[in-house]
Amino acid sequence: MLTEIITIGNELTEGRITDTNAKWLAGRFTAEGFAVARISSVRDKIEEVTTIISEAAGRSDTVILSGGLGPTSDDVTKASLCKLTGTKLVTDKKVLEHIRKMLKGRGLPMNENNRRQSEIPDGTRAIHNPLGTAPGIWLEYNGRVIVAMPGVPFELEHMTGSEVIPRLKERFGTTGYYSRTVMTSGSFEAMLAEILAGFEKELPPEVNLAYLPSPGVIKLHLSASAGTQNEAREMVDNQVDKLSREIPQYITAYDDEPLEMTVGRLLKESGKSLCTAESCTGGKISSMIVSVSGSSVYYKGGVVAYSNRLKTGLLGIDSAVLEKHGAVSRETAEEMAINACRITEADYSVAVTGIAGPDGGTPGKPVGTVCIAVNSPSGCISEIHRFGDNRERNILRASTAALNMLRKRLLF
Amino acid sequence: MLTEIITIGNELTEGRITDTNAKWLAGRFTAEGFAVARISSVRDKIEEVTTIISEAAGRSDTVILSGGLGPTSDDVTKASLCKLTGTKLVTDKKVLEHIRKMLKGRGLPMNENNRRQSEIPDGTRAIHNPLGTAPGIWLEYNGRVIVAMPGVPFELEHMTGSEVIPRLKERFGTTGYYSRTVMTSGSFEAMLAEILAGFEKELPPEVNLAYLPSPGVIKLHLSASAGTQNEAREMVDNQVDKLSREIPQYITAYDDEPLEMTVGRLLKESGKSLCTAESCTGGKISSMIVSVSGSSVYYKGGVVAYSNRLKTGLLGIDSAVLEKHGAVSRETAEEMAINACRITEADYSVAVTGIAGPDGGTPGKPVGTVCIAVNSPSGCISEIHRFGDNRERNILRASTAALNMLRKRLLF
Repeated sequence: MLTEIITIGNELTEGRITDTNAKWLAGRFTAEGFAVARISSVRDKIEEVTTIISEAAGRSDTVILSGGLGPTSDDVTKASLCKLTGTKLVTDKKVLEHIRKMLKGRGLPMNENNRRQSEIPDGTRAIHNPLGTAPGIWLEYNGRVIVAMPGVPFELEHMTGSEVIPRLKERFGTTGYYSRTVMTSGSFEAMLAEILAGFEKELPPEVNLAYLPSPGVIKLHLSASAGTQNEAREMVDNQVDKLSREIPQYITAYDDEPLEMTVGRLLKESGKSLCTAESCTGGKISSMIVSVSGSSVYYKGGVVAYSNRLKTGLLGIDSAVLEKHGAVSRETAEEMAINACRITEADYSVAVTGIAGPDGGTPGKPVGTVCIAVNSPSGCISEIHRFGDNRERNILRASTAALNMLRKRLLF
Repeated sequence: MLTEIITIGNELTEGRITDTNAKWLAGRFTAEGFAVARISSVRDKIEEVTTIISEAAGRSDTVILSGGLGPTSDDVTKASLCKLTGTKLVTDKKVLEHIRKMLKGRGLPMNENNRRQSEIPDGTRAIHNPLGTAPGIWLEYNGRVIVAMPGVPFELEHMTGSEVIPRLKERFGTTGYYSRTVMTSGSFEAMLAEILAGFEKELPPEVNLAYLPSPGVIKLHLSASAGTQNEAREMVDNQVDKLSREIPQYITAYDDEPLEMTVGRLLKESGKSLCTAESCTGGKISSMIVSVSGSSVYYKGGVVAYSNRLKTGLLGIDSAVLEKHGAVSRETAEEMAINACRITEADYSVAVTGIAGPDGGTPGKPVGTVCIAVNSPSGCISEIHRFGDNRERNILRASTAALNMLRKRLLF
């Protein structure tokens, strides 16, 4: 079954917001085995929206629309569907009742705008939206299916999973598609591609490998299409097994688990605790750790020692060490890591000190120089890195490198 | 002049990456006064790429393509342009010379893949790419202009600004477009829309207002199209003046300046310093502050006191206060803020303690309860907030609320 996705709104064609709905829908439909042939974004103009829906329904089995279902004048999706099918809007009593209940729960009266949300084009079916007042719309059109969903991301995502995908599967069936994402850290794309050149050559034709690089982390996306999902799964799993023998030193996790979650899992499993001591990363590492629910079980906290004064004052770094080796040195990083464990009574610590840029570099220690130390019950280790000259990327790469060092220390 | 943007690649239609190139191009073309009618993404299939280019050139004056210009088999843009125009690839000697020089600079020999990058469809013009080896392509086609650019973001962005926009302006001329983004914090969308209902009604027809909400921050985007850019600018500036009288209490900055940058600017101007004491935000506030280049001038650092032990140990919070009022209380937040200033000798501090969720709530203090304190030379103030039940959003909303409190304290 071939799918097209159409997102509607001037905020998209004027580049004011990133089209995260289109990406999410494309990923979800692909994962469910529905190939996405095309994604489009159009302006809030009835004429243009009607045209693109009609074109898409001429090419593809299913057309998924997002946005333009609100009650205001720049919401044109329902009017476009009416124009396409030559019908008028009619009130759906079940939807009206749902809206009344939702508003009552919030202590609000029903106004004309709310009432208009219960109208759908005649001959279409409303799709229940438990999280909002705008229903989705299901339209059978010349043997194709057109689905319109609200643009609010969590409403759209919930409706896709609970209603739209199951109904489409019932309507069209699926072929087998399966994919896995292998997480790697500690290399860069060109290097990984060289190491994996032989592996890539030997891939069966049904299996596709894609590199998805971001600062410090490269995801390897393996996917396969086959007669059934089980067949596709077996093909992908075989290649993932092979990959785990080819590059064990770089793989941090399978199935898209971010590094901060991997580290959190390992700490939880071993019953150990963690603290941080950050200079140039400025709290990025701690905020990554804390983004994981339940991190309070293993994370005690830490210090952002951005100034040298806090390095000596709060972390108790010997000012002789700072003077002799400099704030950006393995010696300072190691003392930060060791003292952080002592002060917080945590089992493990990561410490980072470096020059994020764009200023502060010297010939001996250029912008991008970062020292990382990890302290653990079996001792303190440190590394020195030379990243690039972009501040944001340096902070991200230093943070992932530190979490990856900690991960290895927890494993080996 | 009507523009369409087409981005090419399976990684887009399979939802593996977000289409940041399309957003960037749409924003840039809109800002230059070229209306974008449609954005599309298609798979790496010659047939489908050729079809969509032909369709777009039938509707719009300019078609901008991104991606698919590399030397490997899944790069199909050049082949599609050849198919569209019925021509073959020919070597462009100037491009070949440029590639040779670039490789030499990196100490690399030229291989067959590199050489193939110098080939462009016969009858087209190469667009110089000083930052990479793949040239852009300029094609005049039935009175329309088709431009293909590499998908590497910084190459695409540089080529758009230095070559493509100037040439298109020469070719088509422009009408006047101007826009500004006013930053607000401390309200939510429905509330702001109600306050601004009268303002919106009185907007001249040429001026458009859009709300761009994110957790804790709502951007107001005002844009106008007119005969010249100066006319459009005057229309927008007049409305921004009016807005600054309507909602002075919510506006944090003009022209898209993030809150952490506004706060940094105010600290720099006043020669004051800042520190942080974070519990539930876990370093998010400090990492936002440190994301601004030059923040080491005013930011001393801080403590992530995630566990109660660190609140007493590192921040010296009186355990009687913790016991009497709880870790999540205005009293604890205020003591965190005051002690942080004392320990770090900073002039200002922000302190946050709360329940980010999904666990840890109680009937009296449900998930989303967050206490924020700001200490300054004129005393310590605090607020209690009730956000929602989503961890990520709670951390973001607490962080922006804290920075906004600090901003007001710096101003008034």
